[in-house]
Amino acid sequence: MKQSLLFAPTLRDMPKEAEVISHKILLRGGYIKQGAAGVYTYLPLGYRVIKKIENIIRYELDNIGCSELLMPSLQSKDLWVESGRWDAYGKELMRLSDRHDREFCLGPTHEEVITSIVRDHVKSYKNLPLALYQIQTKFRDEFRPRFGLMRGREFIMKDLYTFSSTQEDLDEWYLKVRKAYQNILDRLDLKYRIVRADSGNIGGKNSEEFMVLCDIGEDTIAYSDESEFACNVELMDLKEGDPSPDGKGTIKLAKGIEAGHIFKLGTKYSEPMKCVFVDKDGKSKPIIMGCYGIGVSRLLMAVLEQHYRDDKAVWPEEISPFEIHIIPLDKEGTPAYDKALEVLQKLEAKGYDCLFDDRGESPGSKFKDADLIGIRNRIVVGRKASEGIFEYKNLANDNTIEVTLDDLMEMEF
Amino acid sequence: MKQSLLFAPTLRDMPKEAEVISHKILLRGGYIKQGAAGVYTYLPLGYRVIKKIENIIRYELDNIGCSELLMPSLQSKDLWVESGRWDAYGKELMRLSDRHDREFCLGPTHEEVITSIVRDHVKSYKNLPLALYQIQTKFRDEFRPRFGLMRGREFIMKDLYTFSSTQEDLDEWYLKVRKAYQNILDRLDLKYRIVRADSGNIGGKNSEEFMVLCDIGEDTIAYSDESEFACNVELMDLKEGDPSPDGKGTIKLAKGIEAGHIFKLGTKYSEPMKCVFVDKDGKSKPIIMGCYGIGVSRLLMAVLEQHYRDDKAVWPEEISPFEIHIIPLDKEGTPAYDKALEVLQKLEAKGYDCLFDDRGESPGSKFKDADLIGIRNRIVVGRKASEGIFEYKNLANDNTIEVTLDDLMEMEF
Repeated sequence: MKQSLLFAPTLRDMPKEAEVISHKILLRGGYIKQGAAGVYTYLPLGYRVIKKIENIIRYELDNIGCSELLMPSLQSKDLWVESGRWDAYGKELMRLSDRHDREFCLGPTHEEVITSIVRDHVKSYKNLPLALYQIQTKFRDEFRPRFGLMRGREFIMKDLYTFSSTQEDLDEWYLKVRKAYQNILDRLDLKYRIVRADSGNIGGKNSEEFMVLCDIGEDTIAYSDESEFACNVELMDLKEGDPSPDGKGTIKLAKGIEAGHIFKLGTKYSEPMKCVFVDKDGKSKPIIMGCYGIGVSRLLMAVLEQHYRDDKAVWPEEISPFEIHIIPLDKEGTPAYDKALEVLQKLEAKGYDCLFDDRGESPGSKFKDADLIGIRNRIVVGRKASEGIFEYKNLANDNTIEVTLDDLMEMEF
Repeated sequence: MKQSLLFAPTLRDMPKEAEVISHKILLRGGYIKQGAAGVYTYLPLGYRVIKKIENIIRYELDNIGCSELLMPSLQSKDLWVESGRWDAYGKELMRLSDRHDREFCLGPTHEEVITSIVRDHVKSYKNLPLALYQIQTKFRDEFRPRFGLMRGREFIMKDLYTFSSTQEDLDEWYLKVRKAYQNILDRLDLKYRIVRADSGNIGGKNSEEFMVLCDIGEDTIAYSDESEFACNVELMDLKEGDPSPDGKGTIKLAKGIEAGHIFKLGTKYSEPMKCVFVDKDGKSKPIIMGCYGIGVSRLLMAVLEQHYRDDKAVWPEEISPFEIHIIPLDKEGTPAYDKALEVLQKLEAKGYDCLFDDRGESPGSKFKDADLIGIRNRIVVGRKASEGIFEYKNLANDNTIEVTLDDLMEMEF
């Protein structure tokens, strides 16, 4: 796409409100823009990354047999009274009344809604299991929103709910989703650990968190660099350098980011909300549920906390907003610019997602913006263009080499 | 995908709340489910259609140089006071306060937000034009929500905003978007007319509506079946059978569905909100805006009002929730069922999106559900499966023929 039409308002100065590197990169690169405290617009670059993350999630969940739907944000008070959470949830629940003075909340999570849908239609063990998910904007009135997308009041979440007739079936789904989550985080090139967790106000006895290892976030994780061992430091008194309890390697500490959370809910919602089925033995029983969340918008920050170089983004391959950035240094109408257009056309024909800097800016200004945006592969069409020679730079290793069009055609980006 | 895991709760009885055919089909086919008045869940089948419609819209808008972003639903009161709409919008605007008693509304439209973003970053004519759109959940507290997705309180809309430095540039964008809208509605196989419209509380002098011709909806359109002539009957006193004012054909009447609306806003928002740029002549001027909406969720109903047969959906090719429905009549483990699996595998390998009825239901029950769901192409693997013969039915013409696997491999669905 032409960069003149991409709205990516880069900031030359360091924004004051950003305390952490990922937030700085997102603001300076023109990825996001704050509307109110904890409320953001995803500008075109940011939304491209979000959509790529969403599609990875969709792929991995569909692959294990989940179905996507979309539930409403407006949830009626009645449902939350049934589950007992209307009072329990406190001030984080955003509440409003309609013109007829009926009370609603804006969904921070959807256990009540999905349970009410399933109870209306599932009657028999024959209709089970079900695994239903959505990718949706959620609302939570945080007392103190912070770190940009880390703890927002309006954010994008993927929430999945499973419905089983037996505990064994729930256990199976739990493991399948756990593996799908691992695939998702692996594809995002994240270093993370799975830790046992406190279930908060979602409920249920068994839950695990997927903690991305980095120094922002709300929890401190003790982990071994040489095994999968990890736990919340509040559970075990471990210090940096201690031997790992599993005998493999030594302990490191990180304030981790919670990227995902999986719960065995059991019958916490199905019992009070009377979401029941008739089992093989003819008896009516509450459906056994699981719920599984991924903080989609938060992942933008988690990824950047682990993927940057000299304060610039180095996006993992699968989620770079564009795959290739083509930068002609000369202006439109020159032979070098036409050469750049030829490069664009040939790379697009190979299926690559290219951003083409067609603006009439100076080379210095173009480079500055390209650095702030941080697209992984960069091709500069500059002074040797007439000889058919271009510069190729990979931001991941910061190497620049001279290439011909033939070279580019043979490369894999 | 396996039908046992697709949550499509079909209804055997005609739902009482549905007054129009499209709403009946969506409810009976398990496409949508009401949460509260005017608030719906898009169940997996409905959401598949929505996503296909969204991707058609994305393709056509990206193609003319628009960029997608995502703005927040929570909009602060201040912005709406600046534009003068906080008071003007009335009870349809859903309002709420956060825990610090700051006032917000839930966006029914985003002129204020996009204008505030653009004014912060666009300084010069060199940064223009821009064309920014989003596909997003909107909120409008309708006094009397009705006809299912036709007039909801929470609904999906595509809204596009253009920013130009000259009136000529706005005119050009307006025509480009108008053509893109025509492409979108053509791909949805809709019969529609473009009519001059009243701009309501969006503002601006010039606007046109894309009215899908059918007998539900809020407006009555007089149109000629033999030309592009159309107008709102409130503007010209025309009756069914009158000669068309353009001399081509005779007049027909329909209560049309507004699928799209395009506006030349001019400086209605940029002036009060001080969204200005420095022009070539060094003078500061308000940016000239356009805005363009498509009712995405409403399109589900508009399409069905024109595409059904015997009270069953016949989805246009590009947006059928699945392309092919494969129905084995025998149970899992039988040779006929394995034959059906082979058909599935080969069609999926060709890239087709297939729904496979793996459930242990009776043939009668499977056919009933298949009719209610209404996937365009149906392959039944029944009693002649052992001879390698299957039944193929196209819902569009209701024809059933016998085919072999070789025949299926050569067909285009």
